[in-house]
Amino acid sequence: MSAPPRSDDALDQRWQAWAEQRGPAAGLHMDNAAAGRSSAEVLAAVSDHAQLEARVGSYVAEELAAPVIGAGRAALASLMGVPTDGLAFVESATAALAVLLRCWPLRAGDTIAVAPSDWGPALEGFAARGLRISELAIVPDGQIDLDQLERRLTTAPPAVVHLTQVASHRSLVQPVAQAATLCRAAGVPLWVDAAQALGHVDTALGADAVYAPGRKWLAGPRGVGVLAVGEAWWRRLNLTVPAMMPAEWPPVRLLESHDAHVAGRVGLATAVRQYLGTGPAQVWQRLQQVGQETRKVLGGLPGWQVAGGGAPSAITGLRPVAGQDVPAVRRRLLDEHAIVTTAAVTARAPREMTETLLRVSPHVDCSAADLDRLYAALADG
Amino acid sequence: MSAPPRSDDALDQRWQAWAEQRGPAAGLHMDNAAAGRSSAEVLAAVSDHAQLEARVGSYVAEELAAPVIGAGRAALASLMGVPTDGLAFVESATAALAVLLRCWPLRAGDTIAVAPSDWGPALEGFAARGLRISELAIVPDGQIDLDQLERRLTTAPPAVVHLTQVASHRSLVQPVAQAATLCRAAGVPLWVDAAQALGHVDTALGADAVYAPGRKWLAGPRGVGVLAVGEAWWRRLNLTVPAMMPAEWPPVRLLESHDAHVAGRVGLATAVRQYLGTGPAQVWQRLQQVGQETRKVLGGLPGWQVAGGGAPSAITGLRPVAGQDVPAVRRRLLDEHAIVTTAAVTARAPREMTETLLRVSPHVDCSAADLDRLYAALADG
Repeated sequence: MSAPPRSDDALDQRWQAWAEQRGPAAGLHMDNAAAGRSSAEVLAAVSDHAQLEARVGSYVAEELAAPVIGAGRAALASLMGVPTDGLAFVESATAALAVLLRCWPLRAGDTIAVAPSDWGPALEGFAARGLRISELAIVPDGQIDLDQLERRLTTAPPAVVHLTQVASHRSLVQPVAQAATLCRAAGVPLWVDAAQALGHVDTALGADAVYAPGRKWLAGPRGVGVLAVGEAWWRRLNLTVPAMMPAEWPPVRLLESHDAHVAGRVGLATAVRQYLGTGPAQVWQRLQQVGQETRKVLGGLPGWQVAGGGAPSAITGLRPVAGQDVPAVRRRLLDEHAIVTTAAVTARAPREMTETLLRVSPHVDCSAADLDRLYAALADG
Repeated sequence: MSAPPRSDDALDQRWQAWAEQRGPAAGLHMDNAAAGRSSAEVLAAVSDHAQLEARVGSYVAEELAAPVIGAGRAALASLMGVPTDGLAFVESATAALAVLLRCWPLRAGDTIAVAPSDWGPALEGFAARGLRISELAIVPDGQIDLDQLERRLTTAPPAVVHLTQVASHRSLVQPVAQAATLCRAAGVPLWVDAAQALGHVDTALGADAVYAPGRKWLAGPRGVGVLAVGEAWWRRLNLTVPAMMPAEWPPVRLLESHDAHVAGRVGLATAVRQYLGTGPAQVWQRLQQVGQETRKVLGGLPGWQVAGGGAPSAITGLRPVAGQDVPAVRRRLLDEHAIVTTAAVTARAPREMTETLLRVSPHVDCSAADLDRLYAALADG
């Protein structure tokens, strides 16, 4: 086993504090792209709300939690670049996309333009909705080619452009801010899958719709997601106002699920409050740094090759170049080294991926020693 | 204020134990049709799983919880009258119906036959799916007329019969067992909205699809629901098998939401285990008795009239016959007497209801003293 490259930076106090907000992990959690580790305060907020439900009744409890949930709604809307009334709590990113496909003014046969790296289950949703999927041109690293996009928006504008802002399987971030400017100028709506972006990079970049679960980089509870819709679209959505809902609600609010994991919404509101306390810009910068460090350390690992590279993402995909069975490696890391990773199958990005990758996604508290431990565990195989 | 009729039965030990499984309520919870009070064990199971997620990673935790969730799946399937592979966990009854409308072999313009008492939001879902809604004939209490149903299934069979087994706004239970026999003989599928039925009455009665949330009479967590599909339909569902899902899964399992409130599923599995321990048949009988007692006590209340009557349901709807504003009464009961009820608006059953009702829905632990307290609070207005 070769010695890993070493990085001796001590963990900054801010990230030490972030780690201390959480209970100790059973091992090394290198799987935040699957789900982040919720803080003790988030777990307590969820549990406290569930206990309140049992004590005073679920709907009375929901009334009592309205200020906390409302603050979370405002904070999330702001992070996603829409007014507060443009945010709906739903169950997941999957549920959010289903809502979007139902309510957006689209016809079967309309074209939706995507990058080859786009999220597979979203592509399945587009096809099921009867949309024609068209690929955008890319530059070598997998980012969309902005010059080509600008031309495309004039010559053959799609009904919608959809970008998965941060890829789930490797280090790749799409230039959403620039794409939003171009799409706006062309009058073509831009939808952003921010599943891996929310809490990880800036997501208030002018897209017309943005959706994400709360459980990944924000480390909220599972079972809560958010859909944000820009104000220009509120009156153009196809809404059947449910008769049980308050008629005075803003349109996007009517998309919110009524029978819901409300305790989870309280938890996500708590997670967002803590995230704002830590400092979003600092988190984004730190996650970029963690990704760079990860790729620097793992870049020298025999038998593996880093997929992609220079993006400001804490997600790293490793290609097995010595015939390894990636799910078996993931299982071995977990069972023998207590290191949590994901075997990222090609269905995640079927227009780009050709093989299963080992995905490593540490959070802000990743130390040099953690990366050394991962290196050693992978080298020892 | 007139003296309420008194019932002096002491609470049976079984129901005392049921009450003791829960922490003390802040007041009088007469709102189980909205959501039941989860037991301490259910709350702990949910909270423990969320803590496990934060410690070992959410997807590792889900693997570890598979036996508990699997036992819950089997128990729920059995309660709903389908094989274990016929059950899918979803987020809510609303989500379950959306899945059903998406996957069932139906064409726009097909007819769905319903009772006038059917759940309003379901009717909205049928219309949005392009189905024609046709009313079934009823007998005076609001139950469907089985002779007329039998004739209808021969002369003008609908594509689907949909029954809301236990009405949400008043004492009314549809004869699902008999309807299932008739529908099966005619080859017409029967769907059952068991939102108020699961855990309240027998729901293993031979319907082709049954769906419900777990939060009401089973007192599971909010944000978890179940969809059960009879085996004859498994291979006839319109499924696009998501590429991220294990191809070997049974068809109905593929309808299950992947990004989910898994801690809630653990909680529902725990609630069902406790329910089976208490004894389903005993619970059903007790809830029927509680409903009868409620209607007996409240039947004499000046200014109110019991809507409907003789059904084996613990849900009672009260009509205001002295010009009361029902939402204001509900608010006053809560604020001044700590009694939790619901103001049931007409959108719940728009083909039957003509006015907002005060809904009272106690659980098995309802004592004679509780009913007296409710009577006194209502009389004192």
